[in-house]
Amino acid sequence: MLKFVRHMHAQAAVPRRALLYVPGNDRRKILKATTLNADCICLDIEDGVSVTAKDVARETISDVLNSATSFAGSEVAVRVNAVSSGMAKKDIACILGGKSPPSAMVVPKVDTLDEAKWLADELKRYEGARGMQLITQVESAQGLLNLNIICNFLSEKLEDINANLAAVIFGSDDFCASIGATRSASGEELLYARQKVVTVAKAYKAQAIDMVHIDFKDMQGFIKYSMQGAAMGFTGKQVIHPSQVAPAHQAFAPSEQRVSWATELIEAFNKHQQEGKGAFVFQGQMIDKPSLLQAQNIKSIADAIVRREL
Amino acid sequence: MLKFVRHMHAQAAVPRRALLYVPGNDRRKILKATTLNADCICLDIEDGVSVTAKDVARETISDVLNSATSFAGSEVAVRVNAVSSGMAKKDIACILGGKSPPSAMVVPKVDTLDEAKWLADELKRYEGARGMQLITQVESAQGLLNLNIICNFLSEKLEDINANLAAVIFGSDDFCASIGATRSASGEELLYARQKVVTVAKAYKAQAIDMVHIDFKDMQGFIKYSMQGAAMGFTGKQVIHPSQVAPAHQAFAPSEQRVSWATELIEAFNKHQQEGKGAFVFQGQMIDKPSLLQAQNIKSIADAIVRREL
Amino acid sequence: MLKFVRHMHAQAAVPRRALLYVPGNDRRKILKATTLNADCICLDIEDGVSVTAKDVARETISDVLNSATSFAGSEVAVRVNAVSSGMAKKDIACILGGKSPPSAMVVPKVDTLDEAKWLADELKRYEGARGMQLITQVESAQGLLNLNIICNFLSEKLEDINANLAAVIFGSDDFCASIGATRSASGEELLYARQKVVTVAKAYKAQAIDMVHIDFKDMQGFIKYSMQGAAMGFTGKQVIHPSQVAPAHQAFAPSEQRVSWATELIEAFNKHQQEGKGAFVFQGQMIDKPSLLQAQNIKSIADAIVRREL
Repeated sequence: MLKFVRHMHAQAAVPRRALLYVPGNDRRKILKATTLNADCICLDIEDGVSVTAKDVARETISDVLNSATSFAGSEVAVRVNAVSSGMAKKDIACILGGKSPPSAMVVPKVDTLDEAKWLADELKRYEGARGMQLITQVESAQGLLNLNIICNFLSEKLEDINANLAAVIFGSDDFCASIGATRSASGEELLYARQKVVTVAKAYKAQAIDMVHIDFKDMQGFIKYSMQGAAMGFTGKQVIHPSQVAPAHQAFAPSEQRVSWATELIEAFNKHQQEGKGAFVFQGQMIDKPSLLQAQNIKSIADAIVRREL
Repeated sequence: MLKFVRHMHAQAAVPRRALLYVPGNDRRKILKATTLNADCICLDIEDGVSVTAKDVARETISDVLNSATSFAGSEVAVRVNAVSSGMAKKDIACILGGKSPPSAMVVPKVDTLDEAKWLADELKRYEGARGMQLITQVESAQGLLNLNIICNFLSEKLEDINANLAAVIFGSDDFCASIGATRSASGEELLYARQKVVTVAKAYKAQAIDMVHIDFKDMQGFIKYSMQGAAMGFTGKQVIHPSQVAPAHQAFAPSEQRVSWATELIEAFNKHQQEGKGAFVFQGQMIDKPSLLQAQNIKSIADAIVRREL
Repeated sequence: MLKFVRHMHAQAAVPRRALLYVPGNDRRKILKATTLNADCICLDIEDGVSVTAKDVARETISDVLNSATSFAGSEVAVRVNAVSSGMAKKDIACILGGKSPPSAMVVPKVDTLDEAKWLADELKRYEGARGMQLITQVESAQGLLNLNIICNFLSEKLEDINANLAAVIFGSDDFCASIGATRSASGEELLYARQKVVTVAKAYKAQAIDMVHIDFKDMQGFIKYSMQGAAMGFTGKQVIHPSQVAPAHQAFAPSEQRVSWATELIEAFNKHQQEGKGAFVFQGQMIDKPSLLQAQNIKSIADAIVRREL
């Protein structure tokens, strides 16, 4: 009955409270990023890099990945160009064909099931994609409409290569342009999109990563939106400036209360496993699989956070 | 053209403005509940009952149902354990196999179509399920994602046994845990989920029953959220304390204005039927099926409320 | 790669910032409407016309369409009765069978895929439906649930007759009745529905037209809701009174900033086409199809607005 537990342990959760974009063609910024202690550093070949600099970005990223550059415990992800751009094939070849592929890849603007299929087929061709954490971005009306079928397809198909749909990112700027919305102070116009993204991502046991806060000098606004995103169930936020890393880490850390609950539940489960009892009960309640998975996920995230801060 | 009317009358609407949970293993609380005049008393075998007390709950509920206990006009429902718990089979056998099955059954945590299929197959085996009002609970990201296909399947399949998908309950606590949300004062983080639940339920002509208000001493908060839920289209609320029954009844009663509209429309329809005219017109407008169904539903609820209060 | 551009130019966007309903049986009001400079005048045979006046409305509209009545640059649409009313067949025959069919048709209460199929089959029978702009209304829980499959079907099927799913209208009054919601000052209870309508419409490159503001004397409220709707991505609003036309036009006009962005992007694209370069780059970024389509759409709307105001 509880064999799902092993699988869960094998795929330890990676915190991505701050996913920091760094232009892939800017070696100085990349080296700076390695000192910022962000949960995830995302080396960008897409929107942060002008068309004329794409090749430099590919080479710089390859170089950094294959060199002895230490990322000091940060996860390293690479954001390739969108499938629809026609450039993703070259990006993927460059990133996954190297000797040190990154542990995660971000694919922006996944709008349709066909794009997801192309992506899965392409990844299959590379040894470096095995065990990879795939992160997709939803950035259009069409992408939001198709999010369920896209996640459904990917989370199933990636198992073939032992990879994982690890997170879904909400790209608010492109999404607003796609639906013709303009941002208000309350952010009310994005409630449907953000909450749907969280719901779909969580239904597939993926993380949900919230929108960028463009005005990096507005720390109050950043904190307000981070708290709001965390309350909605987002597990992290895209950040574009070093000053946003620490407040994102703070806002998206699981609360002490949640961590205690998770720790105690897992201890009870382990004790129960040793005793070989039938049903697993915690605080008088029968514990079901989702609750145990949740506890393990929270514990895993909390442990990873503690390790990173040592 | 209007033969749908007969079916509607056959399945008179039952008000469930307050759905009061009572632990199935607590005979004292059950007897107390029969005096509270709640629209619906839900005898619980699930979360309100610890694992060690499940058998006592099953026996107590059987006993109460088969005895001459009067519920004074309250509907009696039984909440079984979730399909995924492995305990639902035993619960259903106990509840539906008895000589006095309850008129309604609440099934929590219906997350997938497979669970709905298992449920429909299981119900089919019992004579006591014929004519039953089934109430499902949506309590996870997955359940919300699958709500449409689950309701679609059940509302069609239950016809085979002359039963009815009567209501969908939103279980906010488990849902929040499932998506990793934390509750704010405004409740903004649940807008998507609650409004989707209302929309899907109503599309299948089922009632929508809103979340529990845990802090039963906070009457102001209870009233605020009840009013908000009613404004959103919820038809009732889960309640966990006797003091919440009356304010729930008040908040979710159809307004006088709505009842007048419904009463007049139905009178006009009846008059028109007698006169054998072609198209049915009310206040200068052609009345379509949904409007008539709506009016009949409101009238039926209003009449039931009046009967209960006599 | 960019052959989609031609198709886009062929189907120039029509602004519908204000879609003004006029009872089709009221010739005086119709003539008055032609002087109001509304983006779209919608001659109504549905809810604005009592059952006994339907025939008069059909005749009056036919007459107006076939006469030399000038609409002074306003688009003329006709709203037929709902498919489920049984009257749509006669309405469509009357409107599309004439020698001057309107450029747009509004079909209310499209709730199911079957209704959409009936509609597509019916339109196919008329030469006057060729090239038509179809506008559907979503006005019930069922219609909202089925909106994706309905739009998917129609946007594909209408290509057969060179017609176009041009816009989706949100009918808030019937929708509220359908889900049992009551309107609050904040409008919070409609966030899910309105934002879903915008998302689905935009995913199919259709416009999204927001709810009626019934209290036409409440200009402040009208402006507030118009601004809110525009911020959410609605492209226009249903209006029921001459005084609502100008403020709707103002609220839903694309901002100067957006128009500049679109104008410059298109200029850059045209220059690039002449020079025969490979990838299309604007302000250092690779421009993808959706961005170009968006720019063309904004430019087309802005140009049409300027033309109308000359």
